[in-house]
Amino acid sequence: MPTELKNDVFLRALLRQPVDRTPVWMMRQAGRYLPEYRAARAQAGSFLKLCMTPDLACEVTLQPLRRYPLDAAILFSDILTIPHAMGLGLEFETGEGPRIRKPVRSAADAKALGVPDPSTDLRYVVDAVSLIRRELGGKVPLIGFAGSPWTVATYVVEGGSSKQFDIIKAMMYEEPATLHHVLGVLAEATRLYLNAQIEAGAQAVMIFDTWGGILAPQKYREFSLAYMVRVIEGLKREHDGHRIPVVLFTKGAGARLVDLAATDCDALGVDWTTDLAEARTLVGDGKALQGNLDPSVLYASPATIRSEVDRVLASYGNGPGHVFNLGHGIHPDVNPEHAGAMIAAVHELSPAYHR
Amino acid sequence: MPTELKNDVFLRALLRQPVDRTPVWMMRQAGRYLPEYRAARAQAGSFLKLCMTPDLACEVTLQPLRRYPLDAAILFSDILTIPHAMGLGLEFETGEGPRIRKPVRSAADAKALGVPDPSTDLRYVVDAVSLIRRELGGKVPLIGFAGSPWTVATYVVEGGSSKQFDIIKAMMYEEPATLHHVLGVLAEATRLYLNAQIEAGAQAVMIFDTWGGILAPQKYREFSLAYMVRVIEGLKREHDGHRIPVVLFTKGAGARLVDLAATDCDALGVDWTTDLAEARTLVGDGKALQGNLDPSVLYASPATIRSEVDRVLASYGNGPGHVFNLGHGIHPDVNPEHAGAMIAAVHELSPAYHR
Repeated sequence: MPTELKNDVFLRALLRQPVDRTPVWMMRQAGRYLPEYRAARAQAGSFLKLCMTPDLACEVTLQPLRRYPLDAAILFSDILTIPHAMGLGLEFETGEGPRIRKPVRSAADAKALGVPDPSTDLRYVVDAVSLIRRELGGKVPLIGFAGSPWTVATYVVEGGSSKQFDIIKAMMYEEPATLHHVLGVLAEATRLYLNAQIEAGAQAVMIFDTWGGILAPQKYREFSLAYMVRVIEGLKREHDGHRIPVVLFTKGAGARLVDLAATDCDALGVDWTTDLAEARTLVGDGKALQGNLDPSVLYASPATIRSEVDRVLASYGNGPGHVFNLGHGIHPDVNPEHAGAMIAAVHELSPAYHR
Repeated sequence: MPTELKNDVFLRALLRQPVDRTPVWMMRQAGRYLPEYRAARAQAGSFLKLCMTPDLACEVTLQPLRRYPLDAAILFSDILTIPHAMGLGLEFETGEGPRIRKPVRSAADAKALGVPDPSTDLRYVVDAVSLIRRELGGKVPLIGFAGSPWTVATYVVEGGSSKQFDIIKAMMYEEPATLHHVLGVLAEATRLYLNAQIEAGAQAVMIFDTWGGILAPQKYREFSLAYMVRVIEGLKREHDGHRIPVVLFTKGAGARLVDLAATDCDALGVDWTTDLAEARTLVGDGKALQGNLDPSVLYASPATIRSEVDRVLASYGNGPGHVFNLGHGIHPDVNPEHAGAMIAAVHELSPAYHR
């Protein structure tokens, strides 16, 4: 274990090494459901300012760790820092989600894209990672992250969030070379970005493919999976003498787990619509699994939360290789005490699965 | 074949009987992408009026058949006719989607629900079915349909469309008996409703489980699948001496196909995120498959549409048991000529798979 780490159960589980209980963290654990986050967000004035100010990003990263016995911290940032650094004009309008002012719609737009240099263009992220690592003082490991090239491309091409992804799908079918060029630039930018996070102190990295699940299987392989593979192949997998585990998460990809298992990642994120027992059978022994409580369970009572936590633990079953998490980010209107009930239940119930 | 039917390729394919080409129809083929539909909708004054006036429902049902060589007609209606008949106050606000004025939120609300009598409360649907059958004159078979009890319940409980389904999920976790009661009433209402459509002349029926895919697997089995099974068990499977095939469609249920295959339906709808070859392997020889072109392909050029149609035909492969369709309803902003290109491609390319 990295010498200074006081709790390495998360890293051990990702590498499928024996642990005495299942580690737990929550996607979006530094987020709007916490009043202290909302205060920091108000102080920053904007979401983007919060991301871009290392002191504030560090503060909100650490907030959930003060409340809960979590086994990992995750960098507070956004998957759209890369298009922002590319100069595409990222804005977050209140209640509207992200907007890209200069979306990429043509071959000329695509050719004009440059790969940001993380040490300058994304310096604020690198600085936040260094600061968080220092402030954590070895309490738990720090996860770095990025969006998948496909997922980031959906925003870059659509110009923001989308329901049907009409514009990027039209490009995929009619101008595949343009889209491949965009994805190639994003993959290279993502590779450099994640390596910069690793060099600054991220002890594991996760790639969020939020929108891979909307693609037909063959398109998924060609336009999403292939570029995640390209990123992974270029990652530093060891830093400071320690292995850096890589987690891949395609939401809604229960039917694509066999494809994902063939990549060189260490662990797969699994959303709540896939049974972990089925996932384990499909994926085999080569990968750890991370997930997968339905985030809506946190609307239920602590007693129900406890029994649903046990259902997830039981579905994975005995042995190493499970990281407990929600199947998607925590909802902003969840009662923080309910998140605490989930985490307590994992601490209490999971040792039985590691005897 | 029903004596008066001039084209029974759709019914034969659903029953996995040999055909000389793959039948084709489109979910929402009677819909907003057609200018003649928009004219009828404007004439009716409201969407609900269009559904509730048999002459107009018949007219829009037949519109796509005048344009395209489709192999089936589908009743023009809505999955929310049942809650409307229950007196829950259904409204369609322009651009807002459906709204239920009196949502079911408590055990008392649930207990107050009654099962509508289709011969009176949903008479307009029964009359539309009879009229369409007569007007079709045996050109192609007529499909009747209903929403799944779970999918209809999401609107009944949430009070309209939802993104996260917080309210119904909270009920599922905290008041499962209440939700089971709601689902039981809806299942009985759906059984009677589909049987009334069959008696009025529907030659196949389809159950749309648009929102089953948002559930964790065990919850899907308990709250969605179980009630579709209850509906199917109570359906008239023969009418006028002819078998009435039943199609089940859970969107986003690629990972649930084995569960769906265990039901007593004749065919499974498959969305575009599942490969038909994989689905065929999982489902085995007992069920036909219906699908599954990504509806966004219709934004592409006719040449691309043709090659993507062939990809879908090839993924199913040789032999009977395939009904070509989109993987979800046709988008409202699709060029009608592109729908025509898809249908023409199925006619042209599919005979090669039936030699």
